Amino acid sequence: MTSPSFDFAPLLAEGLPPAAAKWTGFPKYNFVGGNNDADQVPVDKLIAASTAVLEREGATLATYGLNSGPQGYLPLREFLVGKLKRDAAIDCTADDILVTSGSLQGLDLVNSILTQRGDTVLIEEDCYQGSINRLVRRGVNIVGIPLDKGGMRIDAVAAALTDLKRKGIRPKYIYTIPTVQNPTGSIMSEERRRELLKLSSEYGVPIFEDDCYADLIWNGERPPALYAMSEGAGVIHIGSFSKSVAPALRVGYIVAGWDVLSRILAIKTDAGSGALEQMVLSEFCTAHFADHVPKLRKGLRIKLEALMEALAEQFGTAAEFDDPPGGIFLWVKLPDNVDAPRLYQCAQAAGIAINPGPEWSVNATHSKSRLRLCFASPSVQQIRDGVAALAEVCRQEFGVPTRSANVERNKS
Amino acid sequence: MTSPSFDFAPLLAEGLPPAAAKWTGFPKYNFVGGNNDADQVPVDKLIAASTAVLEREGATLATYGLNSGPQGYLPLREFLVGKLKRDAAIDCTADDILVTSGSLQGLDLVNSILTQRGDTVLIEEDCYQGSINRLVRRGVNIVGIPLDKGGMRIDAVAAALTDLKRKGIRPKYIYTIPTVQNPTGSIMSEERRRELLKLSSEYGVPIFEDDCYADLIWNGERPPALYAMSEGAGVIHIGSFSKSVAPALRVGYIVAGWDVLSRILAIKTDAGSGALEQMVLSEFCTAHFADHVPKLRKGLRIKLEALMEALAEQFGTAAEFDDPPGGIFLWVKLPDNVDAPRLYQCAQAAGIAINPGPEWSVNATHSKSRLRLCFASPSVQQIRDGVAALAEVCRQEFGVPTRSANVERNKS
Repeated sequence: MTSPSFDFAPLLAEGLPPAAAKWTGFPKYNFVGGNNDADQVPVDKLIAASTAVLEREGATLATYGLNSGPQGYLPLREFLVGKLKRDAAIDCTADDILVTSGSLQGLDLVNSILTQRGDTVLIEEDCYQGSINRLVRRGVNIVGIPLDKGGMRIDAVAAALTDLKRKGIRPKYIYTIPTVQNPTGSIMSEERRRELLKLSSEYGVPIFEDDCYADLIWNGERPPALYAMSEGAGVIHIGSFSKSVAPALRVGYIVAGWDVLSRILAIKTDAGSGALEQMVLSEFCTAHFADHVPKLRKGLRIKLEALMEALAEQFGTAAEFDDPPGGIFLWVKLPDNVDAPRLYQCAQAAGIAINPGPEWSVNATHSKSRLRLCFASPSVQQIRDGVAALAEVCRQEFGVPTRSANVERNKS
Repeated sequence: MTSPSFDFAPLLAEGLPPAAAKWTGFPKYNFVGGNNDADQVPVDKLIAASTAVLEREGATLATYGLNSGPQGYLPLREFLVGKLKRDAAIDCTADDILVTSGSLQGLDLVNSILTQRGDTVLIEEDCYQGSINRLVRRGVNIVGIPLDKGGMRIDAVAAALTDLKRKGIRPKYIYTIPTVQNPTGSIMSEERRRELLKLSSEYGVPIFEDDCYADLIWNGERPPALYAMSEGAGVIHIGSFSKSVAPALRVGYIVAGWDVLSRILAIKTDAGSGALEQMVLSEFCTAHFADHVPKLRKGLRIKLEALMEALAEQFGTAAEFDDPPGGIFLWVKLPDNVDAPRLYQCAQAAGIAINPGPEWSVNATHSKSRLRLCFASPSVQQIRDGVAALAEVCRQEFGVPTRSANVERNKS
């Protein structure tokens, strides 16, 4: 192709993000992204599921929405009804569920029906980058709520709601990842959930509950979903199979009352989410989800332990973190003189990908020396080598950790 | 679930479309939607493709974007490079292609980077409803260009561009479905394409070429794509596998230069389109696309003939239409006293789904008595029975056709 001679630049809409860079492959040490453990993709069972469901219902691919209509493949929604009841204490029917193209489409759809430029929402101060970026792009005012080890601080929620009310502002929602928070990994207690629901009801501000990591809790124990505790009143719940089965399968879901789903369906103009992925997931999950997930968690826990050990070994006391109760990431605090965005750039040059804290937070000061490290995708060996390489970069750039961990240990 | 007691209504964003109605299953006679022929879904070959590709690369599902990055599964893009060259004379590389979740996501993405409220675009006057609705929802001013049997009328394009220029308006694009236009079925000649490109270049207005029906031409012959003729300068091309393989597989693509794709990628924040669907399609298409499509076309042609015969038999001269060179729909003109939206409602009550012309046009007068009838999904028998039922409804409501076709024929 000869180089185009037409200039699109003057025609571009206002406020677009900068152009994307070309993808150049994965970094050597990849500690970013919600990727999972390649060894744990249940390939044989997915093949069996695909064969079975296509033999039985393959011809239905001729119709948008299969024979299930725009809310998504009915057997998948029926699996979810059982799964949500069992795991999250959610009492719902297939009519309360909308299958989406990943939970990211869920974020887009909920934002589209509830928010517009100038609106205000409350979110956890350290928060999933994709959720922050979506709100920033929509021109929504974000009020960050500080977290502690139990998740979103209720006193801060109450203070923010009171303050906003005094200013005559009714926020559009309180966004929370209460069950394995991203990036901190915390799980909000049932007591705190109750308090949050009370505030939500008192101020008339709904809760947007993102439960997409909730399947990955080491001991499998979790409080009921906020949606369950509210009996669906004033809560929109989203979830995903990205973390529990495979991220490249783009299948998530929204659980909400028909008053909400009927507005969302009206703007979900994509002719349905990918049907084959729904069919295969449904067939796989109905038979194997309950066995697959504990096995996956066990493997993830081993990788997390490798990461924590490597950090302790390479960074010593310079790296502070809590052992999270589940998930695929670790939120790490480095000494105050470490500038995470600069570390990110130096690490990138050395083939190490990390998430600098400020991209995962709306509080620049608090997150300046923090990192998010994802551990599900790299092997245990890559985790060890990658953390050693990161420590070396950090030492060269910021003088911490003060010296090679091995030397330190030998001396102690 | 007890009925929710929270009122979301005061929190909804402005300008949302009305709430969706609950899906109640397919109508008895279904002449709407881009659905395809269930008997022609290549189920066995899709199973074989799924098994082969998952055995070989299933573990890559652990990573967003597989091993191909955000532009989509590389083998699928490589298949497209060959297919687009062979069928549409497009000379491009895998880097010029972005795989999307159906061509509908392509529409959304292109609209998002190029248009904002108050902008102007040119589109074919009778046009795909999804394209019209997207523009209306974005607050974009639509200038409809009348069509003749050769597609978009170039004299009208020239007049519109001159008029807009005089007003100081530079439209954001000229949207066209040049190869099996939706709903008229026309194919724009190479000569007319050349004239359109000349106007595009003269006025600095790019062309947005939607080629999603182009695989379904009865004799397989088509002019080069506008993208090919322009060598990519000033043209954005989209296409889909929905019509050629199966609509419930949500896989489409955008072909454009990096200046455009890099802006689109920056707003495609969905973590990639469904990977399993891309993998299975790629595996299937590489081996079987060239054989599958002619067989599919042959079956569709039989259904179209059944539809045209049924219309002639039931409506006689009251139904006017051209025998389209391809596609899955017929654009039918009924007598002027037939109000298509009212016919739509009466037909719906009788279990017959049709697309009333005004939903497929920006010219209310011109489209008032027109219908779009999709013929790929119903069986030949359903087509015959459904058209007879539609004629009966139309006669009862509007007095045309004047009497039962059989009686009429027997008398003639």
